[in-house]
Amino acid sequence: MGKIFDVVLLILILVSVVFVMLESVKGFPEEVYDILYYGEWVITIFFTFEYIARVITIKKPSSYIFSFYGIIDFLSTVPLYLSFILVGSNVLLTVRALRLLRVFRILKITRYVGESNKLISALKESRPKILVFLFFVIIISIIAGTVMYLVEGEESGFVSIPVSVYWCIVTLTTVGFGDIAPVTPLGQLIAAFIMIMGYGIIAVPTGIVSAEYAKSTSKAKPDDDHYVHVNSQACRNCGASKHRDDADFCHHCGDQLHPEDILEKDA
Amino acid sequence: MGKIFDVVLLILILVSVVFVMLESVKGFPEEVYDILYYGEWVITIFFTFEYIARVITIKKPSSYIFSFYGIIDFLSTVPLYLSFILVGSNVLLTVRALRLLRVFRILKITRYVGESNKLISALKESRPKILVFLFFVIIISIIAGTVMYLVEGEESGFVSIPVSVYWCIVTLTTVGFGDIAPVTPLGQLIAAFIMIMGYGIIAVPTGIVSAEYAKSTSKAKPDDDHYVHVNSQACRNCGASKHRDDADFCHHCGDQLHPEDILEKDA
Amino acid sequence: MGKIFDVVLLILILVSVVFVMLESVKGFPEEVYDILYYGEWVITIFFTFEYIARVITIKKPSSYIFSFYGIIDFLSTVPLYLSFILVGSNVLLTVRALRLLRVFRILKITRYVGESNKLISALKESRPKILVFLFFVIIISIIAGTVMYLVEGEESGFVSIPVSVYWCIVTLTTVGFGDIAPVTPLGQLIAAFIMIMGYGIIAVPTGIVSAEYAKSTSKAKPDDDHYVHVNSQACRNCGASKHRDDADFCHHCGDQLHPEDILEKDA
Amino acid sequence: MGKIFDVVLLILILVSVVFVMLESVKGFPEEVYDILYYGEWVITIFFTFEYIARVITIKKPSSYIFSFYGIIDFLSTVPLYLSFILVGSNVLLTVRALRLLRVFRILKITRYVGESNKLISALKESRPKILVFLFFVIIISIIAGTVMYLVEGEESGFVSIPVSVYWCIVTLTTVGFGDIAPVTPLGQLIAAFIMIMGYGIIAVPTGIVSAEYAKSTSKAKPDDDHYVHVNSQACRNCGASKHRDDADFCHHCGDQLHPEDILEKDA
Repeated sequence: MGKIFDVVLLILILVSVVFVMLESVKGFPEEVYDILYYGEWVITIFFTFEYIARVITIKKPSSYIFSFYGIIDFLSTVPLYLSFILVGSNVLLTVRALRLLRVFRILKITRYVGESNKLISALKESRPKILVFLFFVIIISIIAGTVMYLVEGEESGFVSIPVSVYWCIVTLTTVGFGDIAPVTPLGQLIAAFIMIMGYGIIAVPTGIVSAEYAKSTSKAKPDDDHYVHVNSQACRNCGASKHRDDADFCHHCGDQLHPEDILEKDA
Repeated sequence: MGKIFDVVLLILILVSVVFVMLESVKGFPEEVYDILYYGEWVITIFFTFEYIARVITIKKPSSYIFSFYGIIDFLSTVPLYLSFILVGSNVLLTVRALRLLRVFRILKITRYVGESNKLISALKESRPKILVFLFFVIIISIIAGTVMYLVEGEESGFVSIPVSVYWCIVTLTTVGFGDIAPVTPLGQLIAAFIMIMGYGIIAVPTGIVSAEYAKSTSKAKPDDDHYVHVNSQACRNCGASKHRDDADFCHHCGDQLHPEDILEKDA
Repeated sequence: MGKIFDVVLLILILVSVVFVMLESVKGFPEEVYDILYYGEWVITIFFTFEYIARVITIKKPSSYIFSFYGIIDFLSTVPLYLSFILVGSNVLLTVRALRLLRVFRILKITRYVGESNKLISALKESRPKILVFLFFVIIISIIAGTVMYLVEGEESGFVSIPVSVYWCIVTLTTVGFGDIAPVTPLGQLIAAFIMIMGYGIIAVPTGIVSAEYAKSTSKAKPDDDHYVHVNSQACRNCGASKHRDDADFCHHCGDQLHPEDILEKDA
Repeated sequence: MGKIFDVVLLILILVSVVFVMLESVKGFPEEVYDILYYGEWVITIFFTFEYIARVITIKKPSSYIFSFYGIIDFLSTVPLYLSFILVGSNVLLTVRALRLLRVFRILKITRYVGESNKLISALKESRPKILVFLFFVIIISIIAGTVMYLVEGEESGFVSIPVSVYWCIVTLTTVGFGDIAPVTPLGQLIAAFIMIMGYGIIAVPTGIVSAEYAKSTSKAKPDDDHYVHVNSQACRNCGASKHRDDADFCHHCGDQLHPEDILEKDA
């Protein structure tokens, strides 16, 4: 029941986002915009009721209202009302895109949870290292950008250091728009060097996440149903060893075991 | 013998695909198109016979006809006949490209199989995580695309939110066509941020596949000295379970065990 | 001595390659081209003598002449003589670039060898899987290229299926030149899908190489200085076990050990 | 206290870098450039005092002056004074960007240190392999660049071999500016081949760093049953070494051991 409601909500969210996107497209017949407009109002009123229902039903409303999803839910309803009052405030409509984040509520009750949690924990583990890495990327971009500004000059599109740094980030991340490109031989040489560096250092965050992720999933534990931990004690009667830790009798001869025989306790 | 037939088939498939591609190229002398046309008919007739032969020789034809390869085989022959009837229906010819998938039949009997199976199983294992990841990519693209639409406006080529979202995907995946590129300083700053994010998050699926693949090739084996394999039989006297596979007496009460109680033998 | 000769050779190779490259640049004063021309002849004559010397000094010349490096050495000297005979045959000069491969001869005697061998063996191990992967990439490009040709049409630059397939490879590999770019909404949607797919599947070869490489280097060996291999024999006097393989006396009581007590020899 | 000073320094460095970048932007009102100019002087004077303070307070000034950071600190103050003397020498101002590297001083005292050290050590471990890899990339680029120059010719923008090589690096690293792009069918075929190769070989450095990083974080521990920890003590009787940590008698001659002989206790 709750799951069906969640699916309906998910569809409404997606429809709403598609509506926002289509509204920005020019060239449709006038009726389409009318449909988008009224559809938008229907969805917003639905979300408004949902928001009010959540606030009422939750014991401690403040904890919801100021939570991540509470704020998103609020921002998902307000913009349209505001745009009704303040004509031309379609900037606020953007906020609705954040509503998409609520999709994860549904993900939470699916089998994807375990996976995405592992993913997020691996990312969290790697965060300090990735921040150090991104810091390096920005420093390289600032230095290389300044050099390119000096080498290429304004005729090639490197009109200022910030634009040069922007170009460096475009190049180092291997995006390469091509709206700005070096034309002097020296500029192209430096650019080649930046590209090869970018190509090489992309390995760093990948390696980090890969290793962290492998670590967080490896910790090979034998499965509990088919393996039990055994210890080194020997049966006093038959000498059989590798008894279960909680065994009271020998698995081989049935003789009583003596726990004091366990010599080494391993961690 | 069957392998030779497969190789002939593979060559015919490749020739057929090359023919379809060349047909779309303009500027050849007229005779070339004639050769392509007649060659196409010869190959199609060959494939038609092959399809009929398959349907006849297989005991249960319906299981083949509605299988993945059965549908591809059918779609590989029909378009040309249809195009003969319906002039100008060269849209259907595209379907023939799918025929290339049959190449994997030959791969199945080569040493590549074990490898590609491992690859596919690693991909299957990673699928939920990669879906979560791609979901994140699309959400980021929608939000960032809307922001860029607001920031850059229509003069820079960001004519609508869908186009902006398209641009964001182009940027986040580090493709960077450059047909649309930000021109305002704020737009370039946000673009730089998107690029660095894209550069950083490419590490995530790589890390996942890498770790999953490594795991699928090295199965965790518990060390033999501190773990033994246990089975599901229960002691008839005290009901204790998880006895060693070779246990003759219950580890809990010392009563004789009965090996016939082991219900499931696991591989 | 041989190493110094190798270094001289390496420098000559690099100079020669730089000469070939500079020769193609227009706009230098006439004297530069003269220097390049005569320099080229000097280097070529040197390489000719080296080639002759190699052929003479090697016991079985045919094994060298038809080897990989033998062919490269031959092709490194012949083009210039040929260009002297056949005016305008500067196509053959390209072959000289292959001469750069001889650089690896020097790498062979450096510490990089162990590293690059491990690298090459990891690549060799991964080869069948990477071939399967590249095969998938080409199949996806052919299918997607045909679809894009149908969707975009010739006005957007998708003038034929081969060009469309070329564009797909450009997009799937995240290169993205932007000389051809989709302009229709449907084309951009499919392009976005191709890009995300390309962004996702780049993880596959990386994961494979990563895992293979890790496997080839792991095989954890305990460090020799702080760990020694011990065996299962028990001292006849005190029962202490885990003696060094070469131990003659018990580490616990000092009693003589009896090597025949070692029951299991592990590999 | 020292940390607060470091934070102030960090902010000044960032402000200074932003000032240098903004100075290059055209179109601000005249007052902004005045603020940037005077702000720059204030910061430079502050850095001058800091540099002098460092030289004075350090016992052995020469070791600081010629150290990496010493040179950066010097170059961070001198350019502005020089630019005052030599009008138009704004080239030297670039050097100030290097000042950003001092940011790592603060990183040193944060929790990121352990992480970045591990990162750097993993990179150092991988360096020879990555150099071999980059060497391969450059060789491929030179050969492919020469081929593209021959195939495409000067009409397509491949005006010389160096420019062709530059284009190859742009393509192989998947940057793809698009300022130069092949137009002939053969050129596009070769380009497609280069791209797929680039897409495939990006896996190599990633795999290397990933594996090296994983190795550096998970040190191989020998399994307990077949390996025991030994120490450096030598038997007083026969001189045999590498005795078990808990050994009381020499494994070689059976003579009593003296625990006080163990010189180094390792963690």
